[in-house]
Amino acid sequence: MEQLFSYEQLLDFTIHIFRKIDCPEKDAVTAARALLSADLRGIDSHGVARLTGYVRLWEAGRANTSPKLHIVHQTPSTAVVDGDAGLGLVVAPFAMDIAIEKARQVGTGWVSVQNSNHFGIAGYHAMKAVEQDMIGIAMTNASALVAPTFSAERLLGTNPICVAIPAGEEPPFVADLATTTAANGKLEILQRKNQLAPDGWIQDKDGHISNNPHELKQGGALLPLGGDREHGSHKGYALGAVVDIFSAILSGANYGPWVPPFPAYVPMPVNMPGRGIGHFFGAMRIDAFRHASEFKDNMDNWIRRFRSAKPVGGHDQVLIPGDPEREMESERRQKGIPLVQEVAEELKKLGEKFAVEL
Amino acid sequence: MEQLFSYEQLLDFTIHIFRKIDCPEKDAVTAARALLSADLRGIDSHGVARLTGYVRLWEAGRANTSPKLHIVHQTPSTAVVDGDAGLGLVVAPFAMDIAIEKARQVGTGWVSVQNSNHFGIAGYHAMKAVEQDMIGIAMTNASALVAPTFSAERLLGTNPICVAIPAGEEPPFVADLATTTAANGKLEILQRKNQLAPDGWIQDKDGHISNNPHELKQGGALLPLGGDREHGSHKGYALGAVVDIFSAILSGANYGPWVPPFPAYVPMPVNMPGRGIGHFFGAMRIDAFRHASEFKDNMDNWIRRFRSAKPVGGHDQVLIPGDPEREMESERRQKGIPLVQEVAEELKKLGEKFAVEL
Repeated sequence: MEQLFSYEQLLDFTIHIFRKIDCPEKDAVTAARALLSADLRGIDSHGVARLTGYVRLWEAGRANTSPKLHIVHQTPSTAVVDGDAGLGLVVAPFAMDIAIEKARQVGTGWVSVQNSNHFGIAGYHAMKAVEQDMIGIAMTNASALVAPTFSAERLLGTNPICVAIPAGEEPPFVADLATTTAANGKLEILQRKNQLAPDGWIQDKDGHISNNPHELKQGGALLPLGGDREHGSHKGYALGAVVDIFSAILSGANYGPWVPPFPAYVPMPVNMPGRGIGHFFGAMRIDAFRHASEFKDNMDNWIRRFRSAKPVGGHDQVLIPGDPEREMESERRQKGIPLVQEVAEELKKLGEKFAVEL
Repeated sequence: MEQLFSYEQLLDFTIHIFRKIDCPEKDAVTAARALLSADLRGIDSHGVARLTGYVRLWEAGRANTSPKLHIVHQTPSTAVVDGDAGLGLVVAPFAMDIAIEKARQVGTGWVSVQNSNHFGIAGYHAMKAVEQDMIGIAMTNASALVAPTFSAERLLGTNPICVAIPAGEEPPFVADLATTTAANGKLEILQRKNQLAPDGWIQDKDGHISNNPHELKQGGALLPLGGDREHGSHKGYALGAVVDIFSAILSGANYGPWVPPFPAYVPMPVNMPGRGIGHFFGAMRIDAFRHASEFKDNMDNWIRRFRSAKPVGGHDQVLIPGDPEREMESERRQKGIPLVQEVAEELKKLGEKFAVEL
């Protein structure tokens, strides 16, 4: 069972909820737009379904909705930002804007962030750069759900990376990927339908291959992209590790198994070595390398060549990273955003609590 | 059958061969060191086994051994380098040094390279930055052997990425990975032994799963990290695509199916849109973000926590990216580098041809 809501309706509701938990008006709008970009793009696990979770972080005193965001240290092309325990949905746009401004000045900008919270989808932040004729990069660490190759313990988050690249007449190339075989959201769908997970997605608490989508609740783990050693899981593990280090060790945030959990009812890790969770952002001005028009012509040529490649039987065409999400956004802006019944009901309860109508 | 050679013996031989194909003394040393770092680190497919291949590129007029390397365009944090059709083994160190110098000046440096040839292993170039208390990044495109998700055609190279990160008392973290399930070198081992490849490594010319390690000679393709859509191959494809775009579209090199092949007997692609192959390098000064000593303490803590994680039964411990290659280097520096008989014989023939003793 699903219920349809218009984007404007959900945006308005979300802004009002953020206002109710003491976000300044401007921040409430920024946060709501960032959050709902996930619903528009079809990444339902990271969108408005998490709104109640953000509210709970605030209620538990783990998120500060009126943070004093500031730069801790900087050079012409770098900065470290202190998110002051703010919502990542607000901290990330602040940091990305700094990366973009530095790129405007010296060609590229790179910003590592400490003391933040979850920032929604990486794609939203990276795509900000594209509007400025820049390549945008966004990544974040997250609480540990993933077992490195050969580990029975969960030590990494799903640690996504997004790289967004402008094209000319073609739409931008947007690669937005968790460094796991399957995103946690896909597992949640299987949990809801009580279906088995394919090999290579998860392991049980002892590190044995499992197909039980509920395994994570029993000490199991998601697997790094590749699944097992024979299929390159050490590469997915290495990529997730790079995201962790760029996001948290460059900034002074928590890393590895010490990253604070998103659900406010989960106890905080002990002996945390840093502050909050960490993100990393980059912006590279196209014309710091090459005339933007030449670059874009080549990107169009690249995209067209790949899209027109001979497809494997049973598939219509080769997709360009970002194609499915863009098509989803176009459809959902027009027809509305479907929420599963339990999410819709949870939001209505949240609305009643704060006297905000959905 | 294998034959052992000391590192010094192979280095001396390789320098002499590069001298014979008109490399200036300094370049011959630079190229030989870069090439042999692969043999030391156990990536045999990219080391001295390719020396004959480099010579053939020169003989075919496809590689210029006395290139005029120069910067085409730059900003404080970026540059595009023209490799003048030089050996990538010489072009890459030139470009990486520029990235490092820019990082020294403005915090980070990013260099995209056009008109180059194969540069050996990415790890060698990225690790140069580590000695300067910087994070090093190196990537390159390569001729098309990999089929994107849903494609029956080969459109990408194995496009490796290396990220090398300094630690304190612990050895550096070095993630050096092809964006495919399995590197081509691993397939070559199976070919030699006539063993089947696991599912998820290769497909046949029509895009069907295959276990035949000889499939690439019959129009088949390597698969992106993930193997198939269900296991995240669209992520491996996206990563390989990012490497292609950063290396070649930012610089003006060839990309996608137009990247020139390494074997000199393979005809060049038609309608090439750029010049030579492309690379991309980055250097980020640690203290452009945070005190280097704090960063290194945290890296040591990260490494020790991961290395001491509870291992899955049957495995001794969780590895840190770079561990296996470092151990291999230590062993081979001491005991020598084993070459399979056919490589040793090929090198001896090469030596006879140029009157250089192995």
